[in-house]
Amino acid sequence: MVSLLDILHRIEAGGLTPESAIRATMEQVAAKEDDIKAFARLNGNTVSASAGPLSGIAVGVKDIIDTADLPTEMGCPAIYGGWQPRGDAAIVTALKRAGATIAGKTATTAFAASDAPATRNPHNLAHTPGGSSSGSAAAVGAGVLPLALGTQTAGSVIRPASFCGAYAIKPSFRLIPTVGVKCFSWSLDTLGLFAGGVADLAYALAVITDRPDLKLSEPGNTPRIGIVAQYFAGDPEPEAQRALDRAVLAAETAGATLRTFALSDMFGQAWSAQLTIQNYEAKHSFGWEYCERHDDIPPGIRRTLDGAQKIDAASYDAARRTAHRVRRAMNDVFADVDVLLTFSAPGAAPAGLASTGDARFNRLWTLMGMPCVNVPGYIAADNLPVGVQIVAPFGQDARALYAARFLDDALKKAS
Amino acid sequence: MVSLLDILHRIEAGGLTPESAIRATMEQVAAKEDDIKAFARLNGNTVSASAGPLSGIAVGVKDIIDTADLPTEMGCPAIYGGWQPRGDAAIVTALKRAGATIAGKTATTAFAASDAPATRNPHNLAHTPGGSSSGSAAAVGAGVLPLALGTQTAGSVIRPASFCGAYAIKPSFRLIPTVGVKCFSWSLDTLGLFAGGVADLAYALAVITDRPDLKLSEPGNTPRIGIVAQYFAGDPEPEAQRALDRAVLAAETAGATLRTFALSDMFGQAWSAQLTIQNYEAKHSFGWEYCERHDDIPPGIRRTLDGAQKIDAASYDAARRTAHRVRRAMNDVFADVDVLLTFSAPGAAPAGLASTGDARFNRLWTLMGMPCVNVPGYIAADNLPVGVQIVAPFGQDARALYAARFLDDALKKAS
Repeated sequence: MVSLLDILHRIEAGGLTPESAIRATMEQVAAKEDDIKAFARLNGNTVSASAGPLSGIAVGVKDIIDTADLPTEMGCPAIYGGWQPRGDAAIVTALKRAGATIAGKTATTAFAASDAPATRNPHNLAHTPGGSSSGSAAAVGAGVLPLALGTQTAGSVIRPASFCGAYAIKPSFRLIPTVGVKCFSWSLDTLGLFAGGVADLAYALAVITDRPDLKLSEPGNTPRIGIVAQYFAGDPEPEAQRALDRAVLAAETAGATLRTFALSDMFGQAWSAQLTIQNYEAKHSFGWEYCERHDDIPPGIRRTLDGAQKIDAASYDAARRTAHRVRRAMNDVFADVDVLLTFSAPGAAPAGLASTGDARFNRLWTLMGMPCVNVPGYIAADNLPVGVQIVAPFGQDARALYAARFLDDALKKAS
Repeated sequence: MVSLLDILHRIEAGGLTPESAIRATMEQVAAKEDDIKAFARLNGNTVSASAGPLSGIAVGVKDIIDTADLPTEMGCPAIYGGWQPRGDAAIVTALKRAGATIAGKTATTAFAASDAPATRNPHNLAHTPGGSSSGSAAAVGAGVLPLALGTQTAGSVIRPASFCGAYAIKPSFRLIPTVGVKCFSWSLDTLGLFAGGVADLAYALAVITDRPDLKLSEPGNTPRIGIVAQYFAGDPEPEAQRALDRAVLAAETAGATLRTFALSDMFGQAWSAQLTIQNYEAKHSFGWEYCERHDDIPPGIRRTLDGAQKIDAASYDAARRTAHRVRRAMNDVFADVDVLLTFSAPGAAPAGLASTGDARFNRLWTLMGMPCVNVPGYIAADNLPVGVQIVAPFGQDARALYAARFLDDALKKAS
């Protein structure tokens, strides 16, 4: 994969200008595009900033994120075809202020739900890249794009990252503002980043959020890791179990302390509550589309919204109370461990493009608002990557990144 | 003031059709409009729904709230002149689903900050109606509109309601979704309602949020009231003190238990933290406008944003931690009382239109996400209304409304 930091180092060393870096990235993107169809729309007018901490870096922006000079079609041209927002989303302004160049709008499932775009998995074109951040995961996983934006309401950053072999972080809830991002669920929607390595993610997140402590400039401690199977989410497929086993072995070999523990029933209740909260809020967020453009809504999200009409306020309030209680209980989970290690997805990317996979190993962590990092490392049959997920307490994004770097180093040493 | 429930009762009794009710409201609105200038744009195409719990009710929608068939200019025509959103905000869809008719877009300060529109106080045209929900407060306070939407980030619902003699509720944070509302501060922005009475507010809120328990169908208990002076916010003007004294006397006469207490320093710290959170988030929310259209931003909000550029992430995080700690401590405040009673604003509406008044008695409660109701009742010099504010714990919107109804009845008996 292309590394953001590598590009910046080459620019700093004088071997590359920001302009030539952007040009090279756009050429590589274009060369892959016929195969992977990662973009809803490429930026035909890429201008490179001459300065800034992300100058020379081309970024893919998921097409539910507002851009002032590119249409934003929400993966649903029937309703938002050619739709041109007035302004940029806050995250887009933050990227531009840092000198980044918008490579284009990346393909997304309709409204970041389940109706898949034409995007294909860069490691096996017969398989889905996952969703909903399909194009961002595919373009970074293909090794051509150094940075891309996704959003996660259930598992839409970590799961496609796992399927496409990309590094990704879903940071703590609201660490990156979602102003100007099409809302699915205001309690859950979280912006995340895809990049070619843990250090790349850390650098970009530090720059975007103006939090220098995220840059991983320290060596970092050897983490105490809690292995969590998430029994309430069902069994993983064998490939996911093998990816986890391999990560455990590598971490152990590198000196980490590991212990396995089962989360109590309460966490399973929170896992169920996530879906109630997500869909009740979607009922309101997509109120206009549902009432005024019902037949133009793609079938997957339409079915979800049809079902959501029946969720009442009392069920929603009960789900929120469960979430609140379990967020507090999460403190105890981290009494003896620094981070958790779990599955990023149930297995490798499913065959075909119809299903973008299942978010069941992601729902709980999104509801908890906790930072999650996908670390690739295992390649299953048919050349399909399978990642594992590091999870840290809310607000401990640096800790999640340090542990992910440790694990990534360990996996590289082990291979 | 015109009462929403009164209109509905007359329709039910057959004395009025929804269509004639809307026509009558629009005529009364038009008759006042030259004087008070409450609307950024009137709906020239008001169609009445024949059924629904709000059929026959015309609603004013603050012009930072998206409407699919009316422009949304954010109080800033220089940047958003003629701007036409694709869809309706969630609250607008909820109103339409309930059968309400959109009367038009009400005037707002630019981006719901401090730059005043041309709106005038209906009780004294030489005075401000307050802000930022200027037009909504003025049209309801003038007695011509039965329902209007506002938003509060510091004090933009309760303060103008107090100045204009309107009843208003700022419900618990996120009780009404803000999807499709221009974001100032995602941790604070709260949609609120203006209406002609407490029961009107309760009915509309119950219908919009699908929470029947808000309808005040029970007789309600005599509340235990804590009187809070908010010393950290400075002294009130004599008119505000007189309004509070009068409310205390009326409540006591009606049998309520009252006690005065001072909030500890911690609450003053939270009060200060509100401004840090508000302005740090505004820096990000208005990133596009600030970077791309700086000179078109009106001077008041531009100065705020200029200052906000200096607030760093560490200060913001510290302010959020303070807010979190004080939200928990708020439980103890309600150990012996059901609701709090405090000032809605420092005094009567200031003279002139340049200043929309000061939010200092509102900031803490917005940060706490707690439901607040403005109860009018006192008329100061120059015919200017001054209200008082009932505050209940987070999620206890029904309790706030019951206590407000109690106080309102008590004030009416006392006069």
